[in-house]
Amino acid sequence: MSDLYSRLSKDDAAVLLVDHQTGLISGLVRDYGVDEFKNNVLALGDTAKFFDLPVILTTSFENGPNGPLMQELVDLFPNAPKIARPGQINAWDNEEFVKAIKATGKKQLIIAGVVTDVCVAFPALSAIKAGYEVFVVTDASGTFNKQVADAALTRMAHGGAQLMNWFSVACELQRDWRNDVEGFGNLISSHLPGYQNLMGSYRGAQRDFSKQSV
Amino acid sequence: MSDLYSRLSKDDAAVLLVDHQTGLISGLVRDYGVDEFKNNVLALGDTAKFFDLPVILTTSFENGPNGPLMQELVDLFPNAPKIARPGQINAWDNEEFVKAIKATGKKQLIIAGVVTDVCVAFPALSAIKAGYEVFVVTDASGTFNKQVADAALTRMAHGGAQLMNWFSVACELQRDWRNDVEGFGNLISSHLPGYQNLMGSYRGAQRDFSKQSV
Amino acid sequence: MSDLYSRLSKDDAAVLLVDHQTGLISGLVRDYGVDEFKNNVLALGDTAKFFDLPVILTTSFENGPNGPLMQELVDLFPNAPKIARPGQINAWDNEEFVKAIKATGKKQLIIAGVVTDVCVAFPALSAIKAGYEVFVVTDASGTFNKQVADAALTRMAHGGAQLMNWFSVACELQRDWRNDVEGFGNLISSHLPGYQNLMGSYRGAQRDFSKQSV
Amino acid sequence: MSDLYSRLSKDDAAVLLVDHQTGLISGLVRDYGVDEFKNNVLALGDTAKFFDLPVILTTSFENGPNGPLMQELVDLFPNAPKIARPGQINAWDNEEFVKAIKATGKKQLIIAGVVTDVCVAFPALSAIKAGYEVFVVTDASGTFNKQVADAALTRMAHGGAQLMNWFSVACELQRDWRNDVEGFGNLISSHLPGYQNLMGSYRGAQRDFSKQSV
Amino acid sequence: MSDLYSRLSKDDAAVLLVDHQTGLISGLVRDYGVDEFKNNVLALGDTAKFFDLPVILTTSFENGPNGPLMQELVDLFPNAPKIARPGQINAWDNEEFVKAIKATGKKQLIIAGVVTDVCVAFPALSAIKAGYEVFVVTDASGTFNKQVADAALTRMAHGGAQLMNWFSVACELQRDWRNDVEGFGNLISSHLPGYQNLMGSYRGAQRDFSKQSV
Amino acid sequence: MSDLYSRLSKDDAAVLLVDHQTGLISGLVRDYGVDEFKNNVLALGDTAKFFDLPVILTTSFENGPNGPLMQELVDLFPNAPKIARPGQINAWDNEEFVKAIKATGKKQLIIAGVVTDVCVAFPALSAIKAGYEVFVVTDASGTFNKQVADAALTRMAHGGAQLMNWFSVACELQRDWRNDVEGFGNLISSHLPGYQNLMGSYRGAQRDFSKQSV
Amino acid sequence: MSDLYSRLSKDDAAVLLVDHQTGLISGLVRDYGVDEFKNNVLALGDTAKFFDLPVILTTSFENGPNGPLMQELVDLFPNAPKIARPGQINAWDNEEFVKAIKATGKKQLIIAGVVTDVCVAFPALSAIKAGYEVFVVTDASGTFNKQVADAALTRMAHGGAQLMNWFSVACELQRDWRNDVEGFGNLISSHLPGYQNLMGSYRGAQRDFSKQSV
Amino acid sequence: MSDLYSRLSKDDAAVLLVDHQTGLISGLVRDYGVDEFKNNVLALGDTAKFFDLPVILTTSFENGPNGPLMQELVDLFPNAPKIARPGQINAWDNEEFVKAIKATGKKQLIIAGVVTDVCVAFPALSAIKAGYEVFVVTDASGTFNKQVADAALTRMAHGGAQLMNWFSVACELQRDWRNDVEGFGNLISSHLPGYQNLMGSYRGAQRDFSKQSV
Repeated sequence: MSDLYSRLSKDDAAVLLVDHQTGLISGLVRDYGVDEFKNNVLALGDTAKFFDLPVILTTSFENGPNGPLMQELVDLFPNAPKIARPGQINAWDNEEFVKAIKATGKKQLIIAGVVTDVCVAFPALSAIKAGYEVFVVTDASGTFNKQVADAALTRMAHGGAQLMNWFSVACELQRDWRNDVEGFGNLISSHLPGYQNLMGSYRGAQRDFSKQSV
Repeated sequence: MSDLYSRLSKDDAAVLLVDHQTGLISGLVRDYGVDEFKNNVLALGDTAKFFDLPVILTTSFENGPNGPLMQELVDLFPNAPKIARPGQINAWDNEEFVKAIKATGKKQLIIAGVVTDVCVAFPALSAIKAGYEVFVVTDASGTFNKQVADAALTRMAHGGAQLMNWFSVACELQRDWRNDVEGFGNLISSHLPGYQNLMGSYRGAQRDFSKQSV
Repeated sequence: MSDLYSRLSKDDAAVLLVDHQTGLISGLVRDYGVDEFKNNVLALGDTAKFFDLPVILTTSFENGPNGPLMQELVDLFPNAPKIARPGQINAWDNEEFVKAIKATGKKQLIIAGVVTDVCVAFPALSAIKAGYEVFVVTDASGTFNKQVADAALTRMAHGGAQLMNWFSVACELQRDWRNDVEGFGNLISSHLPGYQNLMGSYRGAQRDFSKQSV
Repeated sequence: MSDLYSRLSKDDAAVLLVDHQTGLISGLVRDYGVDEFKNNVLALGDTAKFFDLPVILTTSFENGPNGPLMQELVDLFPNAPKIARPGQINAWDNEEFVKAIKATGKKQLIIAGVVTDVCVAFPALSAIKAGYEVFVVTDASGTFNKQVADAALTRMAHGGAQLMNWFSVACELQRDWRNDVEGFGNLISSHLPGYQNLMGSYRGAQRDFSKQSV
Repeated sequence: MSDLYSRLSKDDAAVLLVDHQTGLISGLVRDYGVDEFKNNVLALGDTAKFFDLPVILTTSFENGPNGPLMQELVDLFPNAPKIARPGQINAWDNEEFVKAIKATGKKQLIIAGVVTDVCVAFPALSAIKAGYEVFVVTDASGTFNKQVADAALTRMAHGGAQLMNWFSVACELQRDWRNDVEGFGNLISSHLPGYQNLMGSYRGAQRDFSKQSV
Repeated sequence: MSDLYSRLSKDDAAVLLVDHQTGLISGLVRDYGVDEFKNNVLALGDTAKFFDLPVILTTSFENGPNGPLMQELVDLFPNAPKIARPGQINAWDNEEFVKAIKATGKKQLIIAGVVTDVCVAFPALSAIKAGYEVFVVTDASGTFNKQVADAALTRMAHGGAQLMNWFSVACELQRDWRNDVEGFGNLISSHLPGYQNLMGSYRGAQRDFSKQSV
Repeated sequence: MSDLYSRLSKDDAAVLLVDHQTGLISGLVRDYGVDEFKNNVLALGDTAKFFDLPVILTTSFENGPNGPLMQELVDLFPNAPKIARPGQINAWDNEEFVKAIKATGKKQLIIAGVVTDVCVAFPALSAIKAGYEVFVVTDASGTFNKQVADAALTRMAHGGAQLMNWFSVACELQRDWRNDVEGFGNLISSHLPGYQNLMGSYRGAQRDFSKQSV
Repeated sequence: MSDLYSRLSKDDAAVLLVDHQTGLISGLVRDYGVDEFKNNVLALGDTAKFFDLPVILTTSFENGPNGPLMQELVDLFPNAPKIARPGQINAWDNEEFVKAIKATGKKQLIIAGVVTDVCVAFPALSAIKAGYEVFVVTDASGTFNKQVADAALTRMAHGGAQLMNWFSVACELQRDWRNDVEGFGNLISSHLPGYQNLMGSYRGAQRDFSKQSV
């Protein structure tokens, strides 16, 4: 059972962002606060960018009530495959999507999306069945309420997915701060106001003591 | 372990609605808001109807305090087997019920009921033992409080049941929007006020721009 | 201080529904569940209809992201004044709106809207200042979260508004069931699933005992 | 403003129990757990009994879905006026009810009922207007959810009612334990499992040390 | 994995009540309301009594701050083995306790106690290791807070215990209402105020229609 | 209405600690976590000590299930009047208690106790009536649940009491850090782990930069 | 009592930001999520900027564990008075602070700060006493927990302060969208992800229909 | 599956405290109250001390915003290995850390840290892979919010870790009170105010009855 701990590696991982569309987020996501959820999704995006992981974007009916992809994600990944599914609900049923994944050559898939119980759970379980290691980013995935999220996460956990959050994904990919102390510090402090405050206080203390030691 | 992902298929699935009786809902269900719960149960009913799945209704002591089946379900499925159990608590102990299931010829059972820890958990676990694949619709199943629900869902998940919600059931059955865009859109928007709002806004925008483009 | 209890009277009251627009509800309301909120708003609408109270609808920028008024309200009140404010945030700053209120000749104003802290609080406080008695329907008014709602309700309560919910509004207007037992019963059971269940159980019991007494 | 503290006195107080009917409790009360609410109502009943306060019971449509009064209350107060209102929602609109209150000769009214926003708030505010001092027993009064309860309690508090709970009512009436130490101890421990545990532990300790001191 | 569903049988089951002592409940249990918890424990006790299951009581240091066993349990099971452990924290480490269990000849153990993470989890896991089937009654077991309870229940579920609540235990033992309709009805309604209300309403309806049919 | 802001002054204030007894806290207080509540009470005690305010302790039936006063309070105020009330529930009904208050010559009373709705609310309201300014320390006062606390705090606020917490009491008494920077820093950091962490980090930074500046 | 509604006016209002320091936020604020709180404070800052209101910043011991002011506020208001209080806890006790307020010539004070019960409540109540109209921005003010916040907000509301949130402040100042549609739209959408999503969907719809109408 | 119950033994266990640093706790931990969390961490520390278990401390970048280790832990374990990791996020990637663990010769690892999803989850899963039995002390480990904690605990539980709390760790190590009644009583009462109250009441009763028996 301890086989479950296959660590994320920046050399083996690709990121799938499924249906983070303005309408779906606005109309359906209620298990996270709006500020928190936007921050989590962008934090995952910036993490993927920072580690230069291949990213695959996909949308469902973006010309319609579901709305377009969050503009920030479009801007962040101008060259990523952006697969507008013509109707398939489970992204894994879309050949182009699976082909794009295969093209990355990666075996570890980091998945987040809206809504958790459908747009995340379906491709996550399909990917496991297809032999991939799947890491679900729970806090960058949203749905109707906590009870629905809990059921979906239980289904995925029992199906073999590993439940993570964007911060633990970033940390497991980074492995060692020394790989890029400043870059990694910027990444996490720009999405963790709590950490940003710590850095503010530390710099403040530095200023205080610099003056004193003069 | 990845075997757990056996996808719901509209060709293989039957729906069991266990004891959604007016008294039991009124007197015992406290883990969902009353508006929300009624909506979830009817949404599951409409989903079954939309996909033309065989439905089996059963009640426990409906001539008594437990009360009659919700009238909307009676109206929705006038021809479904409606098995008034003379005393068996676990519906699976009622031969007529099991026979009705067998008569459908389906191997995937979608179950919801009141209360989750008894009327759902007992037949769900029995069905798994009898070789069926079981999908519990958590948000169309209610009970005394969240702690009781959590224990019952854990018992079922560890026993091999897959935990879902009515929306993910509908989506997994639909597979592809193109199978019936309008019909499926109606199904979900009629039970998801959030989605209905998205459609209202989209149609509003359509009106706005139609005027402008004249 | 006991002067505060001026009872609602169906002869003295008008209803103001402010900015129940699809976009605003979808994007901003998070202090009520979506099923619950939709139900509460329509229940208030049906209450106004049942008592034949004058209703005034108003919207803010409905040709834009805020979206159109909920279609159900449009359908419910085809002949009500529907004032599309060209920019005023406080509806009371719109002359047409105030004129429409004056035209009703009523002195009691029942107000609900989205969002509570702005679209409800501003006109509610203005109306009190203008000499009206104001009754805020808290559960048909929504906003960002409970903390914001609490602050806004406190501001209004200290400013002289009476806090109610749609059900107490309906009951205070009805005064006596005998004014229309069946009509009032239908009104409340159609928006209170809990009450609907009671009626279902009671009718079930009636059927049981009818059979027995034969 | 300090005039608000008019202490409850067992010589000046009567208790009004409004619509504690089985159907209403079962179908509508959701702001208290079922065990907790039943206990609170009976605790208030036993308190009234203990202090021999005049009690007035009233029901709304008890021959119908609202159901009969809780049997325990019927049994507890066999000789209390039990006014079945033929239709008035605000019990204060029922002459017989007001007459029964006047007959008690008391000026302090302790009110509880189902639902808080209607069956409690309406007569409470009417009673204040009629010159009574009103004490609302919040935890023996139930309604749809906490948000509705909060609005109703705010309305009553701003209207001049004093918000209490059954335990503070009992304590304010008792004034001094020495008026009946054993009786009062029994009253509260029979409805406060926490206090009952304290007494159990204390008696246990007494047994321990009795043995030791032999 | 479906082997996990070994149904409780009244012929195979014994009940272990571990450390339901007044001090421990008063001082440590915070994951259930006090009314609710007392009710749940006594409901489990009455269930054991109703099915005439062998019951084993055990306490930890009852001559001391932990306090004596709840008096109601003492009264309910005057002839049950009541093992005062001289120091063992895990009741399974007490030979007398294990011997008493063996003496029952049962293979299914229903366990509840205070606190969940220690007094329940330790003997539950030991019993599984010793070859018993273990059913943990989550709502008759209490501890410091929900987070501690969740961790303990997860530990036990992953260790092979089945999580239940007192009501599902009662129902699984009963199997069929017809085995004793009245007795079982009394058992559950005496501990489920919600069910008691249903019965009250039903009887009320019966009275109504009896009168009418005359 | 702005008269309500009468600032606490260390020259005008006395502290009343009512019934912080081990049994009452253990058996009845459920609206605060146990760690948090103990800390809050001791923080208020240390605040009183720090500002050398007169403190009056009182208990109700301390030779009995209510238990003795928390030992820490006894140790903290060895010379304070400690009035064991022979039966009066409202401490204000005890002459010795009122006499002790008068003896302090203070006009501002800071009150906390167990339970909020009785042991705090009764003397608080009595003291206001007697002409004192009353400051209720809400987080050093505990009761059965949040709903009871809310009702009691509303009653007191409408009755003229000012609602505070121990930290704001300490800060309002201190007025200016410079009156004793180190002493006040110790007072608050010893009861605010969050502040203690800030000081730990600041000292850590000081060490870092001291090394660097060498 | 209706006098309480004195509307905010951009010509009469100044903004006081009290002690939004990195250490205090990090170590003490727990009644808002970190993402949400940071967003609320910056939203209030941007609102002040947008309406060109005079802003006064103040800090408590910023050379120490409390840490420096949030850097974003420093950057936003480079020319605002920034008063580092040498020790006064109530900013109103600092002459320079009061002088800076007087210098603005405004009579309406919008206050937010950390922590609510001290750094906001003290100057808010002092300002009311000094004759100012005070508007407390509850969601840009943080403290230890919700119970402390509730007590402090009650104290301020009863003391005559008006409770608002940053969004209602912005809306009451703006009065009419037409004063600057685009500017105001940018202001609120940049701090309301929910509104930003609505705008994204609307623009998406515009694109859709533009294509179609070609 | 029952193999999962490998009991903690004081002869086989070592304790790993990972990154309990003042900055991280202050800035990032939000799933426990601050009083509660501090108490839990120190309780685990005192437990390790009491059983004389080998303890290994480790920190991440303690010369920086993360801050120094909690001073109380430094003081408690002056001779424990204290490994300041130069950059490795997963402590298991630090050779010195793993070497220190091996040097203890223990096979059971008790882990707690900040944050749960990274500093605990990574080494916990690595340790399981390396053949150790891992016991995660959930309540002495903190992170951003409950949802993140739940995902991380699920990941660890499915990966083979046993979820515990400090109290169950202490009890499982103690096995039998008689190994040191007084010492163990002191250990737990000093960190469980609820238990401390029980002891206070018991001693109070002892005093009462001693007097009486004289």
